[in-house]
Amino acid sequence: MRYARIRLDGRPVHAEIDGDIAHLLDGSPVDGKPRRTGSSVPLGGVDFLPPVIPGVFYAVGLNYRAHIEHYGKPVPDRPEVGYRANNALTGARLPIVKPAEVKGRFEAEGELVAVIGRTLRRAGRAEAQESILGWTIGNDVSAREWQHHDRTFWRSKNSDTFKPMGPWIETDVDPLVQTTTVRIDGVVKAEFATGDMVFDPFDYLVEMTKYLTLHPGDVLWMGADSTVQLEPGSTVDIEITGIGTLSNPVVDERGTPHVQ
Amino acid sequence: MRYARIRLDGRPVHAEIDGDIAHLLDGSPVDGKPRRTGSSVPLGGVDFLPPVIPGVFYAVGLNYRAHIEHYGKPVPDRPEVGYRANNALTGARLPIVKPAEVKGRFEAEGELVAVIGRTLRRAGRAEAQESILGWTIGNDVSAREWQHHDRTFWRSKNSDTFKPMGPWIETDVDPLVQTTTVRIDGVVKAEFATGDMVFDPFDYLVEMTKYLTLHPGDVLWMGADSTVQLEPGSTVDIEITGIGTLSNPVVDERGTPHVQ
Repeated sequence: MRYARIRLDGRPVHAEIDGDIAHLLDGSPVDGKPRRTGSSVPLGGVDFLPPVIPGVFYAVGLNYRAHIEHYGKPVPDRPEVGYRANNALTGARLPIVKPAEVKGRFEAEGELVAVIGRTLRRAGRAEAQESILGWTIGNDVSAREWQHHDRTFWRSKNSDTFKPMGPWIETDVDPLVQTTTVRIDGVVKAEFATGDMVFDPFDYLVEMTKYLTLHPGDVLWMGADSTVQLEPGSTVDIEITGIGTLSNPVVDERGTPHVQ
Repeated sequence: MRYARIRLDGRPVHAEIDGDIAHLLDGSPVDGKPRRTGSSVPLGGVDFLPPVIPGVFYAVGLNYRAHIEHYGKPVPDRPEVGYRANNALTGARLPIVKPAEVKGRFEAEGELVAVIGRTLRRAGRAEAQESILGWTIGNDVSAREWQHHDRTFWRSKNSDTFKPMGPWIETDVDPLVQTTTVRIDGVVKAEFATGDMVFDPFDYLVEMTKYLTLHPGDVLWMGADSTVQLEPGSTVDIEITGIGTLSNPVVDERGTPHVQ
């Protein structure tokens, strides 16, 4: 099953995606089992929204060896999680806006995202696996100069539009045997196996729920193995096999896409 | 006006507090102007819930000079913000649970909290001031050993029940001329002026909204000047004049409050 959230007549509506058709639903998949309303729209022109607005937006920072070595950090010996902010979320096909003040590297990171479907506390691995509603794709856009000089990740990773997520939640996929590919204007810039994670999503959920309760709709972004430079005027696609492709144009805040 | 969120017959209900009476409301104050339903309950026995569940939970880390000096950090030269997580929120009168694994200092920090009432982007100071729905009180409970040894603040500051907030949102108060007092079992352990902040709430909102959109219901915790040790079996009260008192018992996760 593929669950999306789309904009229809200016309002967010949940939908089940079947091929090129979005069947509208009477509720959110994180609140139960929504039913089709009987209405549908063709997928071609719809505006995707983030498929879920999380109660807590968890993100794993250093979880692929090449990325960890790139930053000269030690490989973590236990799963530790950080946070991102809902203001930064945007949907597939919507623009990533590069702020006018950003200098230096402005980068995409293609990430597997777990969407929690059940309340979870002190979970074992099997329970953690059963708690997943499905999987989607995230782009952890980062302004590196801010990241390195600010005291927190607030604007470097959480400026508006820096967190595209979507296009939908796929419920029927084994997330650990897929391939993540990042393309700029159709050209492959990075490719890595989802299974190369230091700690997998269930390792994280087991460790996290020793201390905290996860709720339906919470999301966990799993980190990336590579970073890819973004330029206004281009389009970044993140494909994870078995899930789909998250595609976003990059624009300059000043409204004039750079022509390369 | 004082807006609370209380538990009634197991469900969250918004209420307007008038003296010892909670007048039930037909909606949330962050979504417009709710009206009284005509029903009311006496305040004495109600379970308070966090007065708002934020879309984004912002928190200022180093904003009072004594606290900054205590940690040997430089005084920030610009407002930078961090995040806390909704799972950790709890209401007034509800227990702060000290996890069984916590060793070393387990501390309270009494904080002024701004509750955003309007969508805000690229705000000037006057607009930032007008965007506030009201003010409440937060207790930024922290397990220092985890805080100093973990890579992020995830469990040190965001374990379940580590973020009491409430008891209500006060709409009619000047937040910059109040006194914050932290008491353990009625004994004053810390007292400081809200106005001693390095950057005030409006400085933060102006800087933050250069890069991000604030939404109704977002909260901004303003930091603390002092920390106070918490022991299971005691009760911590945080009073901010003009707003009220956030009171929470501290219990041990193992269920047996220490008797001091």
